[in-house]
Amino acid sequence: MIAIGIDPGTRRLGWGVVRRDGQRLLHLGHGVLRLDCSEELAPRLVLLAEGLEKIIHDYEPEVGSVEGIFFDKNAQSAAKLGHARGVVLMLLQRAGIPVREHAPARIKRSLTGHGQADKTQVAQIVCALLGLEKAPPLDASDALAIAITELKRDPRAIVAEQVSKKNRRKKVAPHFAAALARTKARRNQSS
Amino acid sequence: MIAIGIDPGTRRLGWGVVRRDGQRLLHLGHGVLRLDCSEELAPRLVLLAEGLEKIIHDYEPEVGSVEGIFFDKNAQSAAKLGHARGVVLMLLQRAGIPVREHAPARIKRSLTGHGQADKTQVAQIVCALLGLEKAPPLDASDALAIAITELKRDPRAIVAEQVSKKNRRKKVAPHFAAALARTKARRNQSS
Repeated sequence: MIAIGIDPGTRRLGWGVVRRDGQRLLHLGHGVLRLDCSEELAPRLVLLAEGLEKIIHDYEPEVGSVEGIFFDKNAQSAAKLGHARGVVLMLLQRAGIPVREHAPARIKRSLTGHGQADKTQVAQIVCALLGLEKAPPLDASDALAIAITELKRDPRAIVAEQVSKKNRRKKVAPHFAAALARTKARRNQSS
Repeated sequence: MIAIGIDPGTRRLGWGVVRRDGQRLLHLGHGVLRLDCSEELAPRLVLLAEGLEKIIHDYEPEVGSVEGIFFDKNAQSAAKLGHARGVVLMLLQRAGIPVREHAPARIKRSLTGHGQADKTQVAQIVCALLGLEKAPPLDASDALAIAITELKRDPRAIVAEQVSKKNRRKKVAPHFAAALARTKARRNQSS
């Protein structure tokens, strides 16, 4: 399983790609897309899209993950971040890569064991887990941490989430409807 | 000149396309993309992107415009709106359609003469200006109002904006630098 983690922004976008082989985590790549702040927003979003498409093409990730938004931000920074996130979510989904959001505290807890760790602690653990000799830039190590969080998810939680999603969409899952029909038939036979 | 106006959102996206022939405004089309709220955000953004790409393909607009964000929104709604806007700005720019933002008050002023008009007044003036017999849904009439605002811009303001953008990017515009060099050369000759 190959996961891409993304820490989006309209000035810098951190990305990191990690593969899981059984219990082993392998670092495939990371980087920071730096966007020219003197440009207007629309051309910057195009550069972001082109950069991300190249990364998707090069690493062929099977699953994507981004950090959930802090809502203690002010409306203006939340909106700016939203622009970059919108482009990221749309492009990943369009490339057939399911994308999940992880709360910042969950990412920290998944790596360090507690939700209050600072960025430097997270970066150190990312380096240790992936056997990196040199620490990546903070935006990239955040993105690697997001990818690792995705890969460390409990497989049972993934199955449960898929079933719950199916149920939500179809109201009653087909296998549940079939089981219900069988029970009813049995009741009718016995009565 | 064909302008597309867009009123973006993650539940509904209003759009309207208007052509200007001299001083005459011609209505080409409008509509509302309705996005399934039970879907998650990423697939909804893909539907939004596909819908918008079809509209761009069908109407071939030369210029795009969207409403600026109100910053009296809370962070959560600003972020949500940001996701949809990010996808819209990126796709228009990528299709080679320059996109401009207009403040809500400016749109109202441009249509009704004052910045405090309500949505119904704006919709009535949109209908009158474009000769529509039936009022479009509010999201679409907002989008048509945005397109009309773009087309009603003073051509002198457009030229001034282009020059100022050029200067900002290159610090000194090449023609200005050349004129400066000629003046210096003339001074040297006369001294």
